[in-house]
Amino acid sequence: MSVVVVITARPSYSRVKTVLEFLRRRAVDLRIITGASALAVRHGRVVDQIREDGFKIEAELPCLVEGGRVRESVMTTGLLVSLLGEQFDRLQPDIVVTIADRHETLATALAASYQHIPLCHLLGGEVSGSIDDKVRNAVTQLADIHCVATSRARDRVLALRPDAEVYVTGCPSVDLAAEAIAQGPLRNSDCVVLQHPVTGEAHQAADQMRATIRALEGMDAMWFWPGEDAGAEDMSKVLRLAGKKPIRNKPPLEFLRMLLGAKVLVGNSSVGMRECSFLGVPAVNIGSRQEGRERGSNVLDVIHDAGAIRDAVFVASQMTPARSRLYGDGCAGEKVAAKLMFARVGAVV
Amino acid sequence: MSVVVVITARPSYSRVKTVLEFLRRRAVDLRIITGASALAVRHGRVVDQIREDGFKIEAELPCLVEGGRVRESVMTTGLLVSLLGEQFDRLQPDIVVTIADRHETLATALAASYQHIPLCHLLGGEVSGSIDDKVRNAVTQLADIHCVATSRARDRVLALRPDAEVYVTGCPSVDLAAEAIAQGPLRNSDCVVLQHPVTGEAHQAADQMRATIRALEGMDAMWFWPGEDAGAEDMSKVLRLAGKKPIRNKPPLEFLRMLLGAKVLVGNSSVGMRECSFLGVPAVNIGSRQEGRERGSNVLDVIHDAGAIRDAVFVASQMTPARSRLYGDGCAGEKVAAKLMFARVGAVV
Amino acid sequence: MSVVVVITARPSYSRVKTVLEFLRRRAVDLRIITGASALAVRHGRVVDQIREDGFKIEAELPCLVEGGRVRESVMTTGLLVSLLGEQFDRLQPDIVVTIADRHETLATALAASYQHIPLCHLLGGEVSGSIDDKVRNAVTQLADIHCVATSRARDRVLALRPDAEVYVTGCPSVDLAAEAIAQGPLRNSDCVVLQHPVTGEAHQAADQMRATIRALEGMDAMWFWPGEDAGAEDMSKVLRLAGKKPIRNKPPLEFLRMLLGAKVLVGNSSVGMRECSFLGVPAVNIGSRQEGRERGSNVLDVIHDAGAIRDAVFVASQMTPARSRLYGDGCAGEKVAAKLMFARVGAVV
Amino acid sequence: MSVVVVITARPSYSRVKTVLEFLRRRAVDLRIITGASALAVRHGRVVDQIREDGFKIEAELPCLVEGGRVRESVMTTGLLVSLLGEQFDRLQPDIVVTIADRHETLATALAASYQHIPLCHLLGGEVSGSIDDKVRNAVTQLADIHCVATSRARDRVLALRPDAEVYVTGCPSVDLAAEAIAQGPLRNSDCVVLQHPVTGEAHQAADQMRATIRALEGMDAMWFWPGEDAGAEDMSKVLRLAGKKPIRNKPPLEFLRMLLGAKVLVGNSSVGMRECSFLGVPAVNIGSRQEGRERGSNVLDVIHDAGAIRDAVFVASQMTPARSRLYGDGCAGEKVAAKLMFARVGAVV
Repeated sequence: MSVVVVITARPSYSRVKTVLEFLRRRAVDLRIITGASALAVRHGRVVDQIREDGFKIEAELPCLVEGGRVRESVMTTGLLVSLLGEQFDRLQPDIVVTIADRHETLATALAASYQHIPLCHLLGGEVSGSIDDKVRNAVTQLADIHCVATSRARDRVLALRPDAEVYVTGCPSVDLAAEAIAQGPLRNSDCVVLQHPVTGEAHQAADQMRATIRALEGMDAMWFWPGEDAGAEDMSKVLRLAGKKPIRNKPPLEFLRMLLGAKVLVGNSSVGMRECSFLGVPAVNIGSRQEGRERGSNVLDVIHDAGAIRDAVFVASQMTPARSRLYGDGCAGEKVAAKLMFARVGAVV
Repeated sequence: MSVVVVITARPSYSRVKTVLEFLRRRAVDLRIITGASALAVRHGRVVDQIREDGFKIEAELPCLVEGGRVRESVMTTGLLVSLLGEQFDRLQPDIVVTIADRHETLATALAASYQHIPLCHLLGGEVSGSIDDKVRNAVTQLADIHCVATSRARDRVLALRPDAEVYVTGCPSVDLAAEAIAQGPLRNSDCVVLQHPVTGEAHQAADQMRATIRALEGMDAMWFWPGEDAGAEDMSKVLRLAGKKPIRNKPPLEFLRMLLGAKVLVGNSSVGMRECSFLGVPAVNIGSRQEGRERGSNVLDVIHDAGAIRDAVFVASQMTPARSRLYGDGCAGEKVAAKLMFARVGAVV
Repeated sequence: MSVVVVITARPSYSRVKTVLEFLRRRAVDLRIITGASALAVRHGRVVDQIREDGFKIEAELPCLVEGGRVRESVMTTGLLVSLLGEQFDRLQPDIVVTIADRHETLATALAASYQHIPLCHLLGGEVSGSIDDKVRNAVTQLADIHCVATSRARDRVLALRPDAEVYVTGCPSVDLAAEAIAQGPLRNSDCVVLQHPVTGEAHQAADQMRATIRALEGMDAMWFWPGEDAGAEDMSKVLRLAGKKPIRNKPPLEFLRMLLGAKVLVGNSSVGMRECSFLGVPAVNIGSRQEGRERGSNVLDVIHDAGAIRDAVFVASQMTPARSRLYGDGCAGEKVAAKLMFARVGAVV
Repeated sequence: MSVVVVITARPSYSRVKTVLEFLRRRAVDLRIITGASALAVRHGRVVDQIREDGFKIEAELPCLVEGGRVRESVMTTGLLVSLLGEQFDRLQPDIVVTIADRHETLATALAASYQHIPLCHLLGGEVSGSIDDKVRNAVTQLADIHCVATSRARDRVLALRPDAEVYVTGCPSVDLAAEAIAQGPLRNSDCVVLQHPVTGEAHQAADQMRATIRALEGMDAMWFWPGEDAGAEDMSKVLRLAGKKPIRNKPPLEFLRMLLGAKVLVGNSSVGMRECSFLGVPAVNIGSRQEGRERGSNVLDVIHDAGAIRDAVFVASQMTPARSRLYGDGCAGEKVAAKLMFARVGAVV
């Protein structure tokens, strides 16, 4: 049984790490292919993190075209499709795993499904309100096995693919949150800020970041660099001009323990819905990026307005939301790994 | 109002030709981009046909990677995504049109939707039973405006995209069939054979073609070269060895008039369901390629067995099926063109 | 010591086969990467031949863009550069070997030299009179080690790269000719025809082929399909219309033994200069393709004129030229292999 | 007469700007294609500068693959070859112009020469001591018309291409230097620092930058970001950590006037040899990057050692070198433009 997992970004690794850990303990020929922003210094080279975690990397596929506009994503996708096509042809895996809703996710799905290699999609059926939804649902159309985080996600996948094999496994990133709770909080800053550009609002990216910076003036906050989508360069510039010293990357477990030690997460990352609900950490979610994503009682939604954000952060800091199993019970990695190992591969093709 | 139409194969042109004719009579900046098998001599260079029909070609994108296996489709797709990315960025169209269910259709959808250019998909919501279904439905996820052939197709698109703009326009290829009826039949051969490789059954392609050849022994038949998917090279070899002299291409109208003058269509092309139902020409449909596609009373389905095919051709040759409006009333081109011209483009994005 | 050899066409394999045979008997980690026309059915899939000869293929890189015009060569080259870039990065070889003067040769040179991987170029310094000269000399600029066929080739390389490591090893394809002589002739046809399109004269390709066909009317001739450059599709069509049944490929040794059993080689292949001079087989060389290439007394040059070709074939058929060591003494494979194994790799970088 | 000029980097624009100015005043169909680092925010988007200078951009080709290692240059090159192939096919220019010695220069040369489009290479025949030499000379092999800066450059081109059309036009960047002298100096900093990573020494890039920073401690210096080659990210990091606020870009004329107002240029840019010799500005040239390049009496060469650099800067600051015409007389743009307009294009092909 050979499994290829394609990882092209920092958050994707968090969402598959415990799956990889279970697979390597089993009699599975696991090959990890990395590429795009997973290799970029500017995005913290998560490929190094993966190696430090003891995994062997089968290939690095450099294809992140620089430029900060949406057309560059198209170039990246085109090049990645060709490179993955060759990898899959060379490795002839029994199954390929693709994660969530990035353009590289669709590139992976396309390269696998055209070659009739069974495809497992992690975290389909979610709703986040932008081109990501289109991409995620397009991948759902191409995939053969679907491991989803919530039962509402399962229902959505089944609405799109009534005949599909869908499993509610929870999100593997929540497994790490369980581990973080076991190890206890790390004290760092009151606020953790994770704000990304929104596809389709790239031209407002700078203003959006400015609003958040103004809202958090005077507060003890830890800032992260935005992800690599269109608008990121503008946001980075604003951060630098404001004298922030954003962090590129943290080992995921350390990050979650810091989150556990913080009073509030601020920004528009799905971490606010996903990991924070499990951890019981309040999250101030800004703008449209997570629109439609399922959320627990730990989330306060606001618009991109400095005053509104400031107020929400004040309120959120004093909340103590209950821990929720909305996005999983902490055993998602094991469940996904089991589905991969016992995929009726012949039948799937 | 600027419209880009991407055409990458012979059948795609038939399915959009009357749309183009209506658009050029209007105040629309129409740009036709061709590529992949539309440029290949082996596939009859439909790009020359388009030029002969009086259309200007904005760009030719050579990207058809030769090889006869599925991995080549992946390479073609990757290269096409990058090349289209640049074209769309340069032209900045108000809307892009992509046709049916080929891998180039998905490449077009991907390049347009990532750049937030409104995308119109022609002929979504159909069912044909192979990877084409996955691809067609993935394109449905990415498109903004959907012009479909039948009301069942509309229902299927709405099941996948409950919020989508869907219009039942009929299939523009049927417009040509109406024109063919107006001009009358051309007498050529009794049988017209259009048999293509089936994605996922590429290794059986040669055997499938042999069965059809045996079934039609001694009959007056006009053969066409298979399309460019995996398995096509094997089929072509079988045809050559059997001494057939397949035709690469016919002007669409001439082809339909010959069909009207024939007793039966044999093979696995959607022409059997689509144009033939309108023309009232019997069709013997072989194998799984059109599984699930809506069909009228003119279609007899058989397996890839020489005897079964022979029997079906005999029966079909004596049928006189009624003409049906299942796939349109002959005015699809005008209807699609109208939807494109009045697309609420701003709203769509 | 790890060596990567990139093979993208039938003739390139003949020019490196004995090198590979020597390398596999030594403690060398030999990786063979194939791609482009080496994978195409239409060009006889030399990759299958390589496997039959007992070599393992590291990767197959499908990138031959179909179309029959020069722009397709550019697309093929671009895609190949990216794919090879990834392969070299993954394999990190000590040295890369590239062969002769094809556009894929330059793609290989570019991908290796930009990554600072020492590059060995086989068969630089020749002169053949078309874009091939430009490409061959550009590769000479990029390569670190140069194994050439003749002392005049060495002088030409040194004129371009006064500081270069250049070795006169002879051409490895001649090693096979020595083996063919050892095994003796195979009787097949009087004439062997190897005629290719000429870069820069693609629009005359059909006429050129017609002249040769007319010249050889009534003769006992064995025809081969033309190579994959621009113009090849036109030539192939002419061959088919003339009722010729060209051969795609022959095992190299069998081919050379048939050549030894023939009275004359006709066409514009370098085989006429290279292998035929060693074998002592007369060659009628047509047109400009081999202009400037060194030749022995076995070669008669003619223009693309049916009468002239016919006369030359008549004269050549009655010649018995002496065997010449102009292109090597039959031990080139061993000599090249030794240079590769003892490349002062560190120094080269 | 249609001319395509491909510009992929900031320094390339400086070396062709006055050529463009002359061409646009003539009856020439001038098309400027930009791509790679010319589009990148991190490299100052010289494409915006070109537009501000009143030129229309025909196409932007995003293809700069991010990553900071040499393999990324290979990916960039592969993608650019394909994209340029399509552009040249679409535009069918009479001549293509490529500049100096970058990997994009070779990509341009390859895409043009394979399509048999006459190619003019600016600034061949120079010597700078790294992979750039290989690339520059490979381009010389592919080009048809050669406009060089110095008579020694002409001799070197003729040694590589004894049959070539070579013109000593001077370097167009020097034309701007003449204009800068006419407008007079701008007073800014004493030192202007232009230090780039050296291909083949990417792993030392950080140390090299540190040495320069230490050498200039306490001095009034204006720093620029390094170019986009491998090692640039490390250098940028060192600059940021040292609290420098490097400049991305300056309008070329303003830059040269500041240079004229400075006491010394420090680093390893060819500006030290080229523009500074004409301006009579002393240059401290560090390390191997310009090894072999012709230089006037204004240049002091030092190794990457803080002490040595400091001493050289001290000495250079007190020099008043004579202005030299080594790299041109200030009329190169006009001369190159004339050669392009009267290229015997038919003959060249």
